[in-house]
Amino acid sequence: MTYCVGILVRDGLVMLADTRTNAGLDNIATFRKLHLYQTEGERVIAIATAGNLAVSQSVLNVLTEGLENPETGKIETIHTIPSMFKVAQFVGRAIREVYRIHGKSMEQQAASFDVTMLLGGQVKGGRLRLFMIYSAGNFIEATPDTPYLQIGEHKYGKPILDRAVTGETDASEALKLGLISMDSTLRSNLGVGMPIDIAVIRRDELKIGISHRIDESDTYFSHMRTHWSEALRAAHQAIPAPPYGHDV
Amino acid sequence: MTYCVGILVRDGLVMLADTRTNAGLDNIATFRKLHLYQTEGERVIAIATAGNLAVSQSVLNVLTEGLENPETGKIETIHTIPSMFKVAQFVGRAIREVYRIHGKSMEQQAASFDVTMLLGGQVKGGRLRLFMIYSAGNFIEATPDTPYLQIGEHKYGKPILDRAVTGETDASEALKLGLISMDSTLRSNLGVGMPIDIAVIRRDELKIGISHRIDESDTYFSHMRTHWSEALRAAHQAIPAPPYGHDV
Repeated sequence: MTYCVGILVRDGLVMLADTRTNAGLDNIATFRKLHLYQTEGERVIAIATAGNLAVSQSVLNVLTEGLENPETGKIETIHTIPSMFKVAQFVGRAIREVYRIHGKSMEQQAASFDVTMLLGGQVKGGRLRLFMIYSAGNFIEATPDTPYLQIGEHKYGKPILDRAVTGETDASEALKLGLISMDSTLRSNLGVGMPIDIAVIRRDELKIGISHRIDESDTYFSHMRTHWSEALRAAHQAIPAPPYGHDV
Repeated sequence: MTYCVGILVRDGLVMLADTRTNAGLDNIATFRKLHLYQTEGERVIAIATAGNLAVSQSVLNVLTEGLENPETGKIETIHTIPSMFKVAQFVGRAIREVYRIHGKSMEQQAASFDVTMLLGGQVKGGRLRLFMIYSAGNFIEATPDTPYLQIGEHKYGKPILDRAVTGETDASEALKLGLISMDSTLRSNLGVGMPIDIAVIRRDELKIGISHRIDESDTYFSHMRTHWSEALRAAHQAIPAPPYGHDV
């Protein structure tokens, strides 16, 4: 299992991903799922992956090794595509290319061709954008109405995002909310595990602002977990007792 | 979809259930899913149901119409079974009886025989207990380590229960936490809807303590929703900004 979330707010983009992969409960490993591509001043891109690890690793390789542009005959890579919308299309093409090579054989072995990606970033001259790309290579984009997108085990961490994230949230607050959402997921699904990779890309900076790995020894994260649990306890204790009686 | 939760704490049992049923997004109705059976001073039982409505309604009918006890030849009902453990077995038998009648034909029509129930209560001379009964008629019981059980759409409402409910929580607090858990689920899954039925059974009282239906006009519930959202906002705003930089 996996949990990744991308939050696109007023002043930037926040991406978080856990690192646990599992083939059954008895086969657990750590793999980075958040991948960053930067040419400072020109482009900054973050990709988070969920689903079959063989598929997502192959797709990432295709993104950097490149695909031939069917119109120009030139090889394009994630470092050369001229806009975020075209990068989203390119990631979709890369997914379909991996499906073309491995899809049928995987199905013959009853392995499902399962991959979902969050793609966020900015190319010079364009806007900071966030997409979710499906295993068919098609995609949707986050908008001010729904400024966050999740992949993997999304349900446990969704209520806090639904309540608190708006397009007006600032990036530092969005990162906190992403960490709270991740914490709720870590507590409820063993398939989602530490360390957590985080990245923040501020609007129009065209570089990675924050890139950090949070592990079990991280003081801020453990302080935040404690603080949050205590604040929740205080919050529900402060609500008056339900006034209901025996009336139906 | 459905969300029901039972919480067994120090001084009592809390049960909550939504009332929305749906066969597709375009076919939504309201049905009570929380059912109470009481002979004051002798027994008090609450059952919450999730899954196929035709199955759960049939099972409830079998519980009150009765099944023949294979050893004594007598008809037993939910009003006569002498202990909560035997009631759990009896509900399991009722589910298997409904499967015997309708299961094969449902499968022929590609309708899945899908039912899960929470069974809580106390029979005089026994303990207050809480069970979750599966569609095979087998069941598990809540214990002090895991004092709550959920059926239906359980993920959105689980983080608050995981963080806040212990066997030492009192029943009034557990009801509040159940309502917060329900609120998170209502916000994230359209298949779970108001009104909400709640029941509280206090330990050794052998009667329903609270039985109430919360609808859209309920002032306590809407105050609680607002209070909770505001408290969460204050709680995450009070956490210091993440101190991370660009270090990986």
